[in-house]
Amino acid sequence: MSEAASPTDRSRVRRSADNARYDAATLHAIIDDAYLCHIAFSDGAGVHCIPTACWREGGHLYLHGSNGSRMVKRLLESDACVSITHLDGLVMARSAFNHSMNYRSAMVYGRFELVDDEAAKRHAMEAFMEKLAPGRQAEVRPGNDKEYAATTVLRIDLAEAACKMRTGGPNDDAQDMAWPVWAGVLPFARSQPAPVADPACGVGAPEYVRSWQK
Amino acid sequence: MSEAASPTDRSRVRRSADNARYDAATLHAIIDDAYLCHIAFSDGAGVHCIPTACWREGGHLYLHGSNGSRMVKRLLESDACVSITHLDGLVMARSAFNHSMNYRSAMVYGRFELVDDEAAKRHAMEAFMEKLAPGRQAEVRPGNDKEYAATTVLRIDLAEAACKMRTGGPNDDAQDMAWPVWAGVLPFARSQPAPVADPACGVGAPEYVRSWQK
Repeated sequence: MSEAASPTDRSRVRRSADNARYDAATLHAIIDDAYLCHIAFSDGAGVHCIPTACWREGGHLYLHGSNGSRMVKRLLESDACVSITHLDGLVMARSAFNHSMNYRSAMVYGRFELVDDEAAKRHAMEAFMEKLAPGRQAEVRPGNDKEYAATTVLRIDLAEAACKMRTGGPNDDAQDMAWPVWAGVLPFARSQPAPVADPACGVGAPEYVRSWQK
Repeated sequence: MSEAASPTDRSRVRRSADNARYDAATLHAIIDDAYLCHIAFSDGAGVHCIPTACWREGGHLYLHGSNGSRMVKRLLESDACVSITHLDGLVMARSAFNHSMNYRSAMVYGRFELVDDEAAKRHAMEAFMEKLAPGRQAEVRPGNDKEYAATTVLRIDLAEAACKMRTGGPNDDAQDMAWPVWAGVLPFARSQPAPVADPACGVGAPEYVRSWQK
């Protein structure tokens, strides 16, 4: 996705088009703030919407799965749509009708491709670990040949994508401004409670664990 | 969905089937803890995965949209799949391969139906407001005929649904237990930062605003 990509007919935002964004910086920030995406794909039984872990490197979104998984097979056979949504708040307007939500969402269309080069596959999985816990890749028991052989890594180009976001307070009709009701935003955020060590763990917590809680 | 519904071929969980749940209490709790779902549907351009606000009443999941929206039209024409996923933590195992995530997810298959009875539609929208902010429906400027006429309410039966969840710490292979790395869970939670009043608001905060922050 270039800095000023034009939406395709499929990716163009229809509703509340003023909230649409098509720049790479917005898209990358929304993906990088997520650990999960939802993927729509179809097969003989109809459409499916499956949550799965994801990460980004450069202009691609990556995911992994077991070799035999239905989703992995289907994603290589037909186009999919990937969505990520962060809910940032409930927008309380003076009128029921003007209530809204603040959010950041990204949607990607296209065909997943197999990351089948062995070095590229290992690099991708290490990038995933680096996202989850920076530095941990050097500490864990690394994947062996059998484990890598059982894992499929897929990626999708971010070229056909669109973002949509809403921020800020309520947009009320002028004639409703004097209605005697509280108006504003009830925000949400993702918090990180204290880490829970495995009872059998006798190893001290590394920096990314000690600094987790916030 | 009965208390012990059998999954259909479409809704049966394949991967990590031990994590599957098919009871109504689990399904309802996952939906009730969400404000958004992702909906997969298809049209002539392929599959789409759209986030939208949702709520539950009894055995149905509800959503609303503008009358002219593409999604509203398509959802009445063909089956859809609705997914809700809560990410509860990153599971840090001793081996790279056994890393996982804790989550609660629900998936519903079926055809949306129009809530076109006027009283039922208004009741549904009031139930949505009650979920967002208990008691607020009595305070806001209520919807008028024109606003209700511009709004479509849809619902889908929760009869064909499946949940999948993971909780707890890492499941390591026995031979990895002595690997010298921290193991445990890095938890996530949804927090509620302080409400942000609209600058033009001169009305005191009601109870659901005063008690929001946590």
